Amino acid sequence: MKATIVTIGDEILIGQILDTNSRYISRALNTHGIVVAERTSIGDNRAQIIETLDRALAQSEVVIITGGLGPTKDDITKHTLCDYFGSTLRYDEAEAAHIQAMLAVRHIAFNDLNRGQAMVPECCIVLHNAHGTAPGMWFEHEGRVVISLPGVPFEMQHLIDEEVMPRLKQRFELREIVHRTMITFGIAESILAERIATWEEALPDHIHLAYLPAPNVVRLRLSAYEVEGKEVRHEIDQLFDELQKIIPDNIAGFEEASVEELVHNTLINRGLTLAVAESCTGGAIASKFTAQAGASAYFLCGVVSYSNEAKTSVLGVQMSDIAQYGAVSEQVAKAMAEGAKVISGANFAISTTGIAGPTGGSKEKPVGTVWIGISTPQRTFAVCKNCGTDRSQVISRATAYAIAMLYDELK
Amino acid sequence: MKATIVTIGDEILIGQILDTNSRYISRALNTHGIVVAERTSIGDNRAQIIETLDRALAQSEVVIITGGLGPTKDDITKHTLCDYFGSTLRYDEAEAAHIQAMLAVRHIAFNDLNRGQAMVPECCIVLHNAHGTAPGMWFEHEGRVVISLPGVPFEMQHLIDEEVMPRLKQRFELREIVHRTMITFGIAESILAERIATWEEALPDHIHLAYLPAPNVVRLRLSAYEVEGKEVRHEIDQLFDELQKIIPDNIAGFEEASVEELVHNTLINRGLTLAVAESCTGGAIASKFTAQAGASAYFLCGVVSYSNEAKTSVLGVQMSDIAQYGAVSEQVAKAMAEGAKVISGANFAISTTGIAGPTGGSKEKPVGTVWIGISTPQRTFAVCKNCGTDRSQVISRATAYAIAMLYDELK
Repeated sequence: MKATIVTIGDEILIGQILDTNSRYISRALNTHGIVVAERTSIGDNRAQIIETLDRALAQSEVVIITGGLGPTKDDITKHTLCDYFGSTLRYDEAEAAHIQAMLAVRHIAFNDLNRGQAMVPECCIVLHNAHGTAPGMWFEHEGRVVISLPGVPFEMQHLIDEEVMPRLKQRFELREIVHRTMITFGIAESILAERIATWEEALPDHIHLAYLPAPNVVRLRLSAYEVEGKEVRHEIDQLFDELQKIIPDNIAGFEEASVEELVHNTLINRGLTLAVAESCTGGAIASKFTAQAGASAYFLCGVVSYSNEAKTSVLGVQMSDIAQYGAVSEQVAKAMAEGAKVISGANFAISTTGIAGPTGGSKEKPVGTVWIGISTPQRTFAVCKNCGTDRSQVISRATAYAIAMLYDELK
Repeated sequence: MKATIVTIGDEILIGQILDTNSRYISRALNTHGIVVAERTSIGDNRAQIIETLDRALAQSEVVIITGGLGPTKDDITKHTLCDYFGSTLRYDEAEAAHIQAMLAVRHIAFNDLNRGQAMVPECCIVLHNAHGTAPGMWFEHEGRVVISLPGVPFEMQHLIDEEVMPRLKQRFELREIVHRTMITFGIAESILAERIATWEEALPDHIHLAYLPAPNVVRLRLSAYEVEGKEVRHEIDQLFDELQKIIPDNIAGFEEASVEELVHNTLINRGLTLAVAESCTGGAIASKFTAQAGASAYFLCGVVSYSNEAKTSVLGVQMSDIAQYGAVSEQVAKAMAEGAKVISGANFAISTTGIAGPTGGSKEKPVGTVWIGISTPQRTFAVCKNCGTDRSQVISRATAYAIAMLYDELK
């Protein structure tokens, strides 16, 4: 079973917005055994939508489209689909009532454009959008399914979870997709590949290996598409057992979760608490944790101490340490982590202080130099990492290192 | 001049990573007058790469490919391109020396896999990748250009900025793409569209209107592709002048920048400083500011006061206020903003306290209720906003509202 994902919108093609919808849909389809053959983004252009639909239907049984369902004239997806399937629009009373109610909350009158949103093609099944004013649509076409969803991410997400996936599971007999990931650490990608070359060459044809390098870790993912899950999972377990004998000292674990999810779960399960003191990462570490539902069980406090004054007055770092060693130093990283623990009462704290760039670097401390501090109930220490040369890279690498170091301590 | 962007990697199709490269490349091409016809993501699959190349070359003069250039066997882009263009691989001494030097810094030996990275197709121009070990490649083919870049975002970004765009400008005579955006506020998308319908209908064929709704604002973008920039910019100015007469009270300004960029520039230009106290947004506001180069000029301190204790001990919120009004209240939002100002010495402070969900809501304060506080040199106030029903939506909407409210105050 193959799917094609089509996102429609000039704002994607000109780079005005980031397409996060495709990833969400890819994950949902994968989880349920549907292989994503292609993802494509095109403009609000009738000819291009039609051409893409032709191609998508030729290569896949399921086509999921997002975007172009707004009330204004630049959004043409619904009319194009209606014509493509040779249908006409009808007024859906239930959807109209829902749209009216949603607008009433915001004290907005129901006008002709909103009335237009309640018009749906005769031939489609309406997928109710509880969180927005543009309904989703499900079309059947020569044994294949075309689904059209609004482009607003959370509306699309709720429709995928609550309407699309349950219906796809009913509609098709889905086989399984198995992904399993082993996390290795302390070994560079090219060295790792060399060491496991014989094992890699002996992999059966239906199991694919991918290398996913990240700061300090390389993930090895084994994937098998449209298989009998139970058998293949067993086969993959055996393959990883063999691998474990080849690189016994470089295995951090197995999972699909991100490291922040692992830390999140560990802290909740063990009833521990966390505080964060960030300088160069500027709130990125706090965001990673607080984005996860349930974070308030362990996340007590974060401080983004960008100025030296904030480091001293809020976190209690000694001004003399900053003067003597510099704000980007082992001493300050440790003092920040300890300060965060003290002011919050948390069990664990992590800190970052570094030079994100593009300015502020020196010969001794070039852009990318980051001290990461960890304070546990037992000890406080700090490690210096070179996190690259580009501001966004430095922020994201330092964030990843800091969370990975905390995870190491928790294990 | 049209371009197609192709991102290669199973990790994109299964949703393991977010494709940010396509947006970056789209923006760069647009800025220089190249229209992105399509963006597509495909797997590490030889047949699919060839099929996509055929299609991309048929519809566009420029094809930019990212991904699949790693040292390991799952990365097949280079070999596939080499075969596609009927070339053979040669060993590039300069690239080999660069790779060796990069590995030496990390104390990694140069092995056969790294040697493989220094192999490049005879027929291509090598684009030097100063920040990584996989060189970029530039192929000429029947008057069209195919460019292959590594998938690591910052490596790709530097190659686009320093190698690809300068060469494309030399290679082709590029016309201009003009986008201009007017920001409207305080008027819902459907009402706005109704009010400006006559103006919209009279737009000339070569100028396209798009509606981009966001919390509290709707951006109206006028775009013209491959035109004489000067004339069209003048034409668009006149169109916006007409529009200003239709909705004089709903115009916030004109720009391409995000609101956080506007605030960033305003604070720097006026020598003002900022502090942030976040509860439900959990560091997202601080991140938005600190991600921008130069933020240390004004961003003094952020506090992510997730626990009530952090609100009182770090920000000086009265426990009695929390007990009497609740942590999600006007009083606490105001006290948080004032506290952030006091501990940091900043001129301005913003705060958020709300219920991000999925749990914690009540009938009086459902999920999505967020109090946003603003403290200026003159006054402190707070506004309650309903930011939706979904955790990530609540965080991003509250972040957007808070930054927009601060911008209103700064203007």
